[in-house]
Amino acid sequence: MKFFIFTLFLNFTLFNFTNLYSQHSNPDVEKHRETAISIKNLALNDPHGYHLLEKLVEFGPRLSGSENLINAENFLLELLQNYGFDTVYYQNVEAPHWVRGNTEKLNIISPYIEKKHLAIRALGNSIGTNGGEINAPVIMFDNFDQLEEAKESVKGKIVFFNNKYDQTLLNTFEGYSKAVRYRVDGAWRAAKYGAKAVLIRSVTTSFDNVPHTGTLRYVDTIPKIPGAALGVQDAEFLASLIQNSGEVVLSLNLSCEMKGLTTVKNIIAEIRGSVKPEEIVLVGGHIDSWDLGDGSHDDGGGCMQSIDVLRIFKVLDLKPSRTIRCVLFANEENGLRGALDYGKNSKEMGEKHIAAIESDAGVFTPRGFKAKTDSLTLSKLQSFLPLLQLTGIEWVKPGGGGADINQIPDVRAYIGYSPDEQRYFDLHHSDNDTFDKVNLREMQLGTAAMAILTFLISEEGLD
Amino acid sequence: MKFFIFTLFLNFTLFNFTNLYSQHSNPDVEKHRETAISIKNLALNDPHGYHLLEKLVEFGPRLSGSENLINAENFLLELLQNYGFDTVYYQNVEAPHWVRGNTEKLNIISPYIEKKHLAIRALGNSIGTNGGEINAPVIMFDNFDQLEEAKESVKGKIVFFNNKYDQTLLNTFEGYSKAVRYRVDGAWRAAKYGAKAVLIRSVTTSFDNVPHTGTLRYVDTIPKIPGAALGVQDAEFLASLIQNSGEVVLSLNLSCEMKGLTTVKNIIAEIRGSVKPEEIVLVGGHIDSWDLGDGSHDDGGGCMQSIDVLRIFKVLDLKPSRTIRCVLFANEENGLRGALDYGKNSKEMGEKHIAAIESDAGVFTPRGFKAKTDSLTLSKLQSFLPLLQLTGIEWVKPGGGGADINQIPDVRAYIGYSPDEQRYFDLHHSDNDTFDKVNLREMQLGTAAMAILTFLISEEGLD
Repeated sequence: MKFFIFTLFLNFTLFNFTNLYSQHSNPDVEKHRETAISIKNLALNDPHGYHLLEKLVEFGPRLSGSENLINAENFLLELLQNYGFDTVYYQNVEAPHWVRGNTEKLNIISPYIEKKHLAIRALGNSIGTNGGEINAPVIMFDNFDQLEEAKESVKGKIVFFNNKYDQTLLNTFEGYSKAVRYRVDGAWRAAKYGAKAVLIRSVTTSFDNVPHTGTLRYVDTIPKIPGAALGVQDAEFLASLIQNSGEVVLSLNLSCEMKGLTTVKNIIAEIRGSVKPEEIVLVGGHIDSWDLGDGSHDDGGGCMQSIDVLRIFKVLDLKPSRTIRCVLFANEENGLRGALDYGKNSKEMGEKHIAAIESDAGVFTPRGFKAKTDSLTLSKLQSFLPLLQLTGIEWVKPGGGGADINQIPDVRAYIGYSPDEQRYFDLHHSDNDTFDKVNLREMQLGTAAMAILTFLISEEGLD
Repeated sequence: MKFFIFTLFLNFTLFNFTNLYSQHSNPDVEKHRETAISIKNLALNDPHGYHLLEKLVEFGPRLSGSENLINAENFLLELLQNYGFDTVYYQNVEAPHWVRGNTEKLNIISPYIEKKHLAIRALGNSIGTNGGEINAPVIMFDNFDQLEEAKESVKGKIVFFNNKYDQTLLNTFEGYSKAVRYRVDGAWRAAKYGAKAVLIRSVTTSFDNVPHTGTLRYVDTIPKIPGAALGVQDAEFLASLIQNSGEVVLSLNLSCEMKGLTTVKNIIAEIRGSVKPEEIVLVGGHIDSWDLGDGSHDDGGGCMQSIDVLRIFKVLDLKPSRTIRCVLFANEENGLRGALDYGKNSKEMGEKHIAAIESDAGVFTPRGFKAKTDSLTLSKLQSFLPLLQLTGIEWVKPGGGGADINQIPDVRAYIGYSPDEQRYFDLHHSDNDTFDKVNLREMQLGTAAMAILTFLISEEGLD
């Protein structure tokens, strides 16, 4: 990377700086401007990836072990084989096979009120209620501290964590990570004190009554109890009933169960590098989704963007210097087994990933990239900004990479595509995550951003 | 404004700069951080403005002269009177009263094909077809150059401008301003050469078949002819038919008409400044909308954000140093008469607007503010960025202000709120502009951005 010294004016503003930055940016980057423009124009004129996403989600949601997922895997393999990439292959992966079943009921037994039924969805990987119902009084907590204070009162009860999503955080992923601990760890923490089941308020920015699922975690030494998420409106209703009525008795019936293991696939395609083929630039998302909605944003869209990156290289006849590899990971949602296996295999084969880019935050309008890397590599990535800005990307910041790519050892830069995040948790893991929530231009701009970044890393490396 | 000198590192990146900027930002700005956080938290925790928008749009679309608009004006006046602002008043404005009528038909007469009917909407302010039909061959042009070249062939025909929206432009407003000239000036340019009517391809980023309306302009010395917009899919269909079938004869029937003038209202509320009451910081949008959809994004949302800015001052008991004035303009869509009258009155009264902020680009996720002002004032506005960033605002750039506020003479800074623009022209001026397309968090973050900017200008001025 080249560095530049700027003349500073006394009246120096961010706006001026941005201008200067663009005007004086790295010639090693600027020489790729025409290619970057071609990539952006192709993405915006060609709704290819968007229409393929529509086809993918027509199979329905794609939880590990489902017939839908097998259909989707076959569709993706055939699709990739038809593009004429250098290699297309898959890796079989053993993953948890959890099924929701047909029964998900939460009823108010007492006090006697007109509204009896509350909207719930079982949490992923939860056990069921063993063919019957769990009838028990409910005890409500806002957080784990309250649980600890009242631990003597929990035995034999249904514990309800009514933790509210912090709407004041600009970054909705921060709000999510604060609230999601009740979904992940609520069951074993309540079971430790003898609870019979756990309920949570759905982890969502939305105010509707659509429950949001997601995994819970069990701990080996503590009995497993069933867990379910309430829609936000019914969580508020239940909270108000508990506050006003004293004892509330609920009846929970869940037919979900863990069926053991199933075989799923990581699907991989690549364009071999012409100069340094041993250096891999990975771009990917995950094929599986929760069994609600159709998984358009989480993460069918990320898969289609990743495929489209390689397709754009083919259409524009770009011969990358380094190997460009699209990886569609298996089983991100309830096991991460696809990414773990991919990382293990890759290490055994001595593969060298210089960068891994993941799109798994929805396919909304581009804002930036978040990179987990060293500061020099971050600077190098930031030197690409003048071309990434063609697609609406405003920044490259330090950040978290992605759930799948973070399982691969020794990648120089783990890079998360970071679209606008305000709508994501309205949809995430729920019936609301459907294709009609995807905007063509927003999705294609993200594809263009990923393709330009992939191209620049391929040509310029990260040194 | 205070200026700062930064120590520059050789490895100096935009990211580092942003950090430095935040760390060393102006103490005159930083002292307001707690207030800015309170504003943001209130906006994000309180869906007040969003729910009022829902109520507003229940009256239906609000074109000048419509009963819906009168109901909306009454609702807004009563609403504002109940907040306890220092002043609430309105200005009567004479505005064009155009009505669409019940008939909007475009049929294919020849060649004989199964699909007869094409989706159209009359363009705003268009004359109708005089109670009957215009039956004529159609002639198609991509642009005005082609019209000029073939001007001898236009007489007696229906001219169809099939100008395609340039999807490759990141800034959708640029694409709009390139394509919209065929809607605005197509009729008189075609009429100059004897055309009987004009059709345009809808000016939209969308690929559906929903026609998008908007004004056309007549020129006094050239006969008026009717104009209508085709849905994009039917525009493509017609174009293909013309290319493949030789002569295509169409029948156009429009019952729209200009009924003369109607009285509409600018609605105004203010909180009087405690230190410099004569200096006004205006925040506003326009009440009227096209008669399709419900005008949620254009511009019911902008009105509700502007009202909410004043409400937030009341709820947080902020006593602004300068006068904060909310102006809900009349008749932006087909005359701009509200803004023109407001500007004229304001000048006659010798009022001093130091800034005018308009939200009229949809209520999507915040990106920035675009200011029409001198470079020193721009720098001052940019010094507010560290607090505006609390709401997702990334920049303050030179730009266009807003259609309404730009009619006010001698404002120090004309400032347009600039949300993400990728989805706006999917909806704009069509049946698609409805409340379900508004996202609560996106709207409220915009309100917060406007309120923080209003507060900072009020307290710090623009000198």
